Amino acid sequence: MKNIPAGKYRPYPKIDLPNRKWPNNTITKAPKWCSVDLRDGNQALINPMNMDKKLELFSLLLKIGFKEIEVGFPSASKIEFDFLRRLVNDKLIPDDVTIQVLVQAREHLIAKTFEALKGVKKATIHLYNSTSTAQRKMVFKKSKEEIIALALEGVDLVKKYEKKHDGEIFLEYSPESFTGTELEFAAKISNAVTARWGISDKRKVIINLPATVEMSTPNVYADQVEWMSEHLDNRENVIISTHTHNDRGTSVAATELALLAGADRVEGTLLSNGERTGNVDIITLALNMTTQGVESNLDFSNVNEVIDVVERCTEIKTHVRHPYVGELVYTAFSGSHQDAINKGLAHRKASKEVFWEVPYLPIDPEDVGRSYESIIRINSQSGKGGVAYILEKNFGYQLPKAMHPEIGKLVQNVSDKKGQELSSEEILKIFEDNYFHVKEHISLTDFTVSSVKGISKCTLTYIYNGKEITVEGEGNGPVDACKDALMKNYKNDFIINSYYEHSYGNQSSAKAIAYIEIQTKDTLSCFGVGADNDIATASVKALFCALNRTFH
Amino acid sequence: MKNIPAGKYRPYPKIDLPNRKWPNNTITKAPKWCSVDLRDGNQALINPMNMDKKLELFSLLLKIGFKEIEVGFPSASKIEFDFLRRLVNDKLIPDDVTIQVLVQAREHLIAKTFEALKGVKKATIHLYNSTSTAQRKMVFKKSKEEIIALALEGVDLVKKYEKKHDGEIFLEYSPESFTGTELEFAAKISNAVTARWGISDKRKVIINLPATVEMSTPNVYADQVEWMSEHLDNRENVIISTHTHNDRGTSVAATELALLAGADRVEGTLLSNGERTGNVDIITLALNMTTQGVESNLDFSNVNEVIDVVERCTEIKTHVRHPYVGELVYTAFSGSHQDAINKGLAHRKASKEVFWEVPYLPIDPEDVGRSYESIIRINSQSGKGGVAYILEKNFGYQLPKAMHPEIGKLVQNVSDKKGQELSSEEILKIFEDNYFHVKEHISLTDFTVSSVKGISKCTLTYIYNGKEITVEGEGNGPVDACKDALMKNYKNDFIINSYYEHSYGNQSSAKAIAYIEIQTKDTLSCFGVGADNDIATASVKALFCALNRTFH
Repeated sequence: MKNIPAGKYRPYPKIDLPNRKWPNNTITKAPKWCSVDLRDGNQALINPMNMDKKLELFSLLLKIGFKEIEVGFPSASKIEFDFLRRLVNDKLIPDDVTIQVLVQAREHLIAKTFEALKGVKKATIHLYNSTSTAQRKMVFKKSKEEIIALALEGVDLVKKYEKKHDGEIFLEYSPESFTGTELEFAAKISNAVTARWGISDKRKVIINLPATVEMSTPNVYADQVEWMSEHLDNRENVIISTHTHNDRGTSVAATELALLAGADRVEGTLLSNGERTGNVDIITLALNMTTQGVESNLDFSNVNEVIDVVERCTEIKTHVRHPYVGELVYTAFSGSHQDAINKGLAHRKASKEVFWEVPYLPIDPEDVGRSYESIIRINSQSGKGGVAYILEKNFGYQLPKAMHPEIGKLVQNVSDKKGQELSSEEILKIFEDNYFHVKEHISLTDFTVSSVKGISKCTLTYIYNGKEITVEGEGNGPVDACKDALMKNYKNDFIINSYYEHSYGNQSSAKAIAYIEIQTKDTLSCFGVGADNDIATASVKALFCALNRTFH
Repeated sequence: MKNIPAGKYRPYPKIDLPNRKWPNNTITKAPKWCSVDLRDGNQALINPMNMDKKLELFSLLLKIGFKEIEVGFPSASKIEFDFLRRLVNDKLIPDDVTIQVLVQAREHLIAKTFEALKGVKKATIHLYNSTSTAQRKMVFKKSKEEIIALALEGVDLVKKYEKKHDGEIFLEYSPESFTGTELEFAAKISNAVTARWGISDKRKVIINLPATVEMSTPNVYADQVEWMSEHLDNRENVIISTHTHNDRGTSVAATELALLAGADRVEGTLLSNGERTGNVDIITLALNMTTQGVESNLDFSNVNEVIDVVERCTEIKTHVRHPYVGELVYTAFSGSHQDAINKGLAHRKASKEVFWEVPYLPIDPEDVGRSYESIIRINSQSGKGGVAYILEKNFGYQLPKAMHPEIGKLVQNVSDKKGQELSSEEILKIFEDNYFHVKEHISLTDFTVSSVKGISKCTLTYIYNGKEITVEGEGNGPVDACKDALMKNYKNDFIINSYYEHSYGNQSSAKAIAYIEIQTKDTLSCFGVGADNDIATASVKALFCALNRTFH
């Protein structure tokens, strides 16, 4: 094993909280939710969102029911500035939604922020500076007093520009890297900020306690939140907010335990997007509440739509085992699980019981827009990607993505009839039977093509209705030439949607496998597959295969 | 919002534990670890592991340092039986490793299990039956007494076969669906089992408390474990084991808090494989300990190797934000994070400090076999998949996987020089400059090919060293014919490793894009790209492009 020097890592300090109350509590109502998808989420993407994606995601957040949305750091990024202006100019912000923007305590940034906010009716200015011991020592080289002065300077600047702004302004203050900060200092700087802002029941302040880096077990974060809750002045007018990251894989737990400890508000993202390991996943938090009979105030009744939009915007695939939403989470593979689920569902139906109590299913899949069918479907190995994966990994056929549903359905039919899992070999046989041994209504006899400067001329011989026909054609490439020749006698018109070809083996003399997708008047679309030493002939074989498949 | 009927979901009952001790504890030593990758993990795969994959994974588990490995349910599955026999016959089980097998309380299953175990020196028989209220009512329709009788029948059978077995036998008992079971009943059945087994300091028993379905916040599971720890007879000879699933996204937290509450042993998998949302991820648990200076007794100093093997065996991709191991977790995108990390690393170097304290990096990436370089690399958008992703999504070029490192490196070089993120358009320009506008040492003038029954004959005209040459060739397909023609005068021999082609646009008259990978004496391998209306010409252009690129 690798030797890590003694003292390189140290235990996180314990919190002195002998009379802690949070372990006796349960979550009985939803917190205020704030989405930071467009800020913390977006900043951590390989390919940050463009304007269209930001608009699409914003619209999804509204549809889900978020009333507080952090839209960016408009003074630091032109596209985030432009995006906020677009929201204002196109009147895309509903009256009951508060727009949140991040900013540091510097006048030109705050001035620019208010410029971006012009016309916004309800806005939260999210002011932050790092307060951790490590950053004070290594990054800023400032004393505690200087760090407090910096925060108060920020508050004064926000108050100055607030006066000129036509609309409501709320203050959020984050002692950034809170989990690396001494609790006493975090409370001191937060109390200084709320006092300077002039906190009151009309002027509540959000104190956000970021686990910028998750550094300890989640009970410790809960202790910290309970400690802060007891040491913040004007507690009744402070909105304690959590902002957890997932470095130790416990951001959901840390947030839940913090809610037990008195937090009022949660910042997070959809599907845990965000720096490094991501921010806490709000979908999991909300649906965890749903399963306890607590109204989350967020609508996740169609998680597939949510995933679609988020995956498109972030370009990050959701893990197949992601709680509540992953492709495999409503799937029972084990026979005993399947049996228990079936009995549970049958019992539920027979007893007309309202209470959801089905073994191995912590939530009714229908409540999130999923279905029981998928349990069987994926179990019998015909999940969308599964079949194609097996054909590629085990047998080297790289089916184009658009073909996956077609082959998936063919396998599904067989596995449904068989009523059990199919082996890889059985899947290969279904593929070969349907694409290489398809019944021939029209059959290729010979194909000769010559290409000169991109113009292909071909001679095609085929049998149709018992008659052999030889005909010539030309076009851009062999497939096009073949189609041209074919259409001189063959009357079922079609278009070619796509083709795709790959080598099969390692040398130039290996086979080529071609996939062609055609569309006739009568079919939505249909794939054919052809294999040959010659790439042009493989394509033509694939075309004939597709034509024959449309007769099915 | 979707209306969920009142009463459909109910809050999980609270545990009455007013003097709970666990929130005052910290984790100071590693538990006994037991991998269930080959059992719970394997049973939940779309494509369960074959013999080779099982052997590869088993060998990885040994290398990591697991001393207890559940290898399957040999009495229920032929491949799991055969796998265990293979381990025995090939002498693959080290003396200090205990093999664990799952079984139900039925004589023919227990007999078969002992048959599979013949020759195993140390084995744990993992006996289980479901004890939850829901399963008692809906699935088994048995009283509590009948459920206890079933468990004891199992114990008696194991004792009977234990006598004839040459080797040590340990007992593990799981009240399955523990989180759906009344605590009093779980303790009663567990105590009945240990008494019947004859528990003593020479005959310790593992009582496993599965969160078969995760049903509450993780503090409640800790309360349950502490409660059980106080109510189990002969506690000093009971090894309390956790077995958590991730339905609520808090399996890591539940396990950690259970360790605070007195659990001695942890069952889990690598990367959270397992039914539905998966079992708890042991990598995260172990590295969480590492960051607190606690020796985990597991070796994750090369996480990339671990991921490689697990992904190959499970066919499940690791999420890019998975704690400690995801592709993006050592990546800082925000400028202020990068700045703080750089200052932290500089401070560490200058001060010769042993203690790891670098902002935004909870662990030294080198301790898990990752590197600081990756922070910059991915940040400048040249992550392996990132560049190819942008070329495909934004511009329609479907680069073959084997080409990703080559284009990644080209983009890397530019971004390193520029020192900031590149836009999609800049990435496209790098691609086009290197593949479409490559400096020509040898240039294609004309290519004419005719194919008759798979034999292609071509006429090739090209310029090399200022001289135009026309030559004929033949082969299996146009690329092969072209190579044959070319090699009559061109003296730099090469082989063609692979080619790949796709349509660009939607109709048959659209362009074809071909990718060819060649290998010469001097280059490891090199890709060329060609675009043409004709698929054969596109391939030949790609070949010439690749040849020209080998001159670089």
